[in-house]
Amino acid sequence: MGQQMKADITMSLDGFITGPNDGIEKGLGEGGERLHEWLYGLASWRERHGYEGGTTDRDAEVLEEAFATTGAILMGRRMFDIGEAPWGDDPPFHMPVFVLTHEARDPVTKEGGTTFTFVADGLDSALEQARTAAGDQDVSVSGGANILQQCLAAGLLDEIQIHLVPILLGDGVRLFDHPPARPLELEATRVIESPAVTHLKFRVPR
Amino acid sequence: MGQQMKADITMSLDGFITGPNDGIEKGLGEGGERLHEWLYGLASWRERHGYEGGTTDRDAEVLEEAFATTGAILMGRRMFDIGEAPWGDDPPFHMPVFVLTHEARDPVTKEGGTTFTFVADGLDSALEQARTAAGDQDVSVSGGANILQQCLAAGLLDEIQIHLVPILLGDGVRLFDHPPARPLELEATRVIESPAVTHLKFRVPR
Repeated sequence: MGQQMKADITMSLDGFITGPNDGIEKGLGEGGERLHEWLYGLASWRERHGYEGGTTDRDAEVLEEAFATTGAILMGRRMFDIGEAPWGDDPPFHMPVFVLTHEARDPVTKEGGTTFTFVADGLDSALEQARTAAGDQDVSVSGGANILQQCLAAGLLDEIQIHLVPILLGDGVRLFDHPPARPLELEATRVIESPAVTHLKFRVPR
Repeated sequence: MGQQMKADITMSLDGFITGPNDGIEKGLGEGGERLHEWLYGLASWRERHGYEGGTTDRDAEVLEEAFATTGAILMGRRMFDIGEAPWGDDPPFHMPVFVLTHEARDPVTKEGGTTFTFVADGLDSALEQARTAAGDQDVSVSGGANILQQCLAAGLLDEIQIHLVPILLGDGVRLFDHPPARPLELEATRVIESPAVTHLKFRVPR
């Protein structure tokens, strides 16, 4: 297969990846934190945060698989700003993270192998750095909506995995808010269901 | 279980039930017809349109199940206006259909058992008439987005089935466009996947 460029993100049934009024103050917005509840009890999530125990169900396997195949992460500045405080001294990534931003800034090294490198000279540059850092593993775009839409529009993604949570949030940041130039057909390649979340994987035609 | 109030609708991955510029002239809008392609080859769909042959896969079973448990249909005026011509003399419903509208109008009787009754005195009245017509079978809200959102907001739905098509349309009518008063938790009760479409069933708490 070679190195893949993937997106991996949690979305409500009505299409939101945060609740209303998200931001540095309010985190993922009203009800937004609920989107990620499916993660918190998982053994594979707890292990990444230094805790023992947790469940080892299919949700845990899906998460473990996503991390195991990923060598570097690409994210938007806003996701970093909202996440930095809650992620703490030992963020759950444990790999190089490249943050697309408008202002140059020194890299930040956290515990557990997570590094944040800020890239101010565009998406292509951020992607190239992430690709190099990932080696023969994949690059994962973890959000937010803006960078994911940019990657889709530029035809950069090979695969999208959406963790669909059965909740209607009503407002917030929509994952798909900007029209593609034309309808874009994806190929549904895998569905894994659990009571908490439905994991939908799609291949993007290149 | 008793009589259930269900919604059953096809949606793109980015949340649209029509493409851009839908209307009486352009039908389901640009790319919108694509949403329903999963239906056209199915034996259970073809039979409803008086044709033989077709596939009898899981998609066909899902469609057959939806019709078999439904005794009456509730739809919005706009869906009727867009659908009337393409549905032809023998629409695929073969049961009483109640159309929520603002103008009183005589009922229309088509071939094959489909009747359209226009209800101008509100959603509650339309629902009551549909419930009576359905007998001990379920009532299905088949669209569009507006009436489905009204039913959700009024707490009238027991179940929602979404046929999720792996396409990004970019624009059109969004199924979930109006904020619920608060985040609404659904219960994911069934997922059936096929290459063409993922059938997601949810129970709505009452």
